[in-house]
Amino acid sequence: MRVLTTVAELQALADAEHAAGRRVALVPTMGALHAGHLSLVEVARARVDRVWVSTFVNPTQFDDPADLARYPRTPERDLRACREAGVDLVFAPSAAELYPDAADTWVEVGALARPLCGRTRPGHFRGVATVVAKLLLAARPRLAVFGEKDFQQLAVIRRMVRDLLLDVEIVGAPIVREPDGLALSSRNQNLCPESRAQAVVLCRALDRAEAEHRAGETDAGRLLAGVRQEIAKASRAEIDYAELRDPVALEPSPPRLRGPALLALAVFFRCGAAPDAPRVRLIDNRVLRPRRERARREG
Amino acid sequence: MRVLTTVAELQALADAEHAAGRRVALVPTMGALHAGHLSLVEVARARVDRVWVSTFVNPTQFDDPADLARYPRTPERDLRACREAGVDLVFAPSAAELYPDAADTWVEVGALARPLCGRTRPGHFRGVATVVAKLLLAARPRLAVFGEKDFQQLAVIRRMVRDLLLDVEIVGAPIVREPDGLALSSRNQNLCPESRAQAVVLCRALDRAEAEHRAGETDAGRLLAGVRQEIAKASRAEIDYAELRDPVALEPSPPRLRGPALLALAVFFRCGAAPDAPRVRLIDNRVLRPRRERARREG
Repeated sequence: MRVLTTVAELQALADAEHAAGRRVALVPTMGALHAGHLSLVEVARARVDRVWVSTFVNPTQFDDPADLARYPRTPERDLRACREAGVDLVFAPSAAELYPDAADTWVEVGALARPLCGRTRPGHFRGVATVVAKLLLAARPRLAVFGEKDFQQLAVIRRMVRDLLLDVEIVGAPIVREPDGLALSSRNQNLCPESRAQAVVLCRALDRAEAEHRAGETDAGRLLAGVRQEIAKASRAEIDYAELRDPVALEPSPPRLRGPALLALAVFFRCGAAPDAPRVRLIDNRVLRPRRERARREG
Repeated sequence: MRVLTTVAELQALADAEHAAGRRVALVPTMGALHAGHLSLVEVARARVDRVWVSTFVNPTQFDDPADLARYPRTPERDLRACREAGVDLVFAPSAAELYPDAADTWVEVGALARPLCGRTRPGHFRGVATVVAKLLLAARPRLAVFGEKDFQQLAVIRRMVRDLLLDVEIVGAPIVREPDGLALSSRNQNLCPESRAQAVVLCRALDRAEAEHRAGETDAGRLLAGVRQEIAKASRAEIDYAELRDPVALEPSPPRLRGPALLALAVFFRCGAAPDAPRVRLIDNRVLRPRRERARREG
């Protein structure tokens, strides 16, 4: 497995792979790799000849410097995990390498990036779109794989790639969960044992809404009330947002759901009993599909 | 000469040219071609195997819809001029082709795009950076040539290309002038005879500042006073800006010039005697260089 830290080396290798006719997939991560990331590697491997993983922790997508400082970093473990997963190349540049010489160019997606996490984390998706554009331009992969846990991120990146005429296929991969249902996230490492135990309410809330929806409930208000009730069972949870939105345009769902609806959750978990204890923000989501579409997809 | 109108065709041809080892230069224009554009073609031809010209009039860089409506369009003449100049390909997409399906991704350069034309024309450089990024990503040229008349545009594009890690060389080409000194611009077509005659004050103001600077004047205020005096000789001229700035960072020059200084002018010319007659905005610039640097460049 190769480990590269400069854009020039990566571009030269990309050229060589193209010239040799080998298809490359990029899996952009921020390190602190877990089984969710490794599932992206598997999705990539099934499609291409070479799987490249980037582990750059992108400072420009953190709206809060404290959040950036706390973001888990496990570089040695990441390299080992990639090697064991048969990754061909890890790209681990410095911030100065990706943002050289007072870099001051930003890629911004409009309407899709405004609601949900875009509202809570101003500038977040600008940072995401910018760094992903740079990584795609540096690595020039045939395809790039992102997890569906970051549903809005995936939508923003798809839109950016289409709008900028980037010649790369964006592939979404299903959420990977712990046995109790908690979606895998690098941020889970920052949960204290009690908030970790309580964090399962995210998935339970999604399960409840999905069950009610399958049973015929299409009233958005009632579905969201059930979600809030589930999350309220966790004493350390505080809802950032719980919303039903159109899964493509991310516009608010109508009061009575007709088509598929994205149920998107962001919840803070306080780590400690004190009211000013540090908080970990987790997200999760599920697309609720009308019965007919469900039958079509499952059948 | 080929004429293409779709991104897919252009990308396919770019792939074929790469595979054949042929170097391509792109000359992005907005049509209404004049000898200035053709000089860019010549600069390109000296460096590569294939010269491609785009003639897309980019709506997103016009802050004023009336300005977009008035912008000259001469598609047949443009094709003829390109054919005669030995251009290999003209790319003339529709707006829907470059901004498909409610495109909503924007490339924005920060500090460099704020002063000068960026202040007068809000959103202008966002539109420029976005469309140039798209054109570069669609055509994937080895190099792209832009005129130095649009000095700030050239600076913004250089910065964007470097920041986004785009693998293309940006080449600036010298301003081409009419015999009386007026810098060639597609907008010159919109001048009435009287404002056309008066527009020569732009170049005269630059000449005067350059002469005074060569004679030892380094006081920015006095140089600009001379510029304003020259422009005031034109009864139909109204200064948008007349500024001395650092030619790299575009920051304001110090009161006493030390290094090279960009003298940048934007002037409205009223076309007609009425105070509310339509106005044509022209820009021009010159870099004033200290004697020592001048000797080095000229010697």
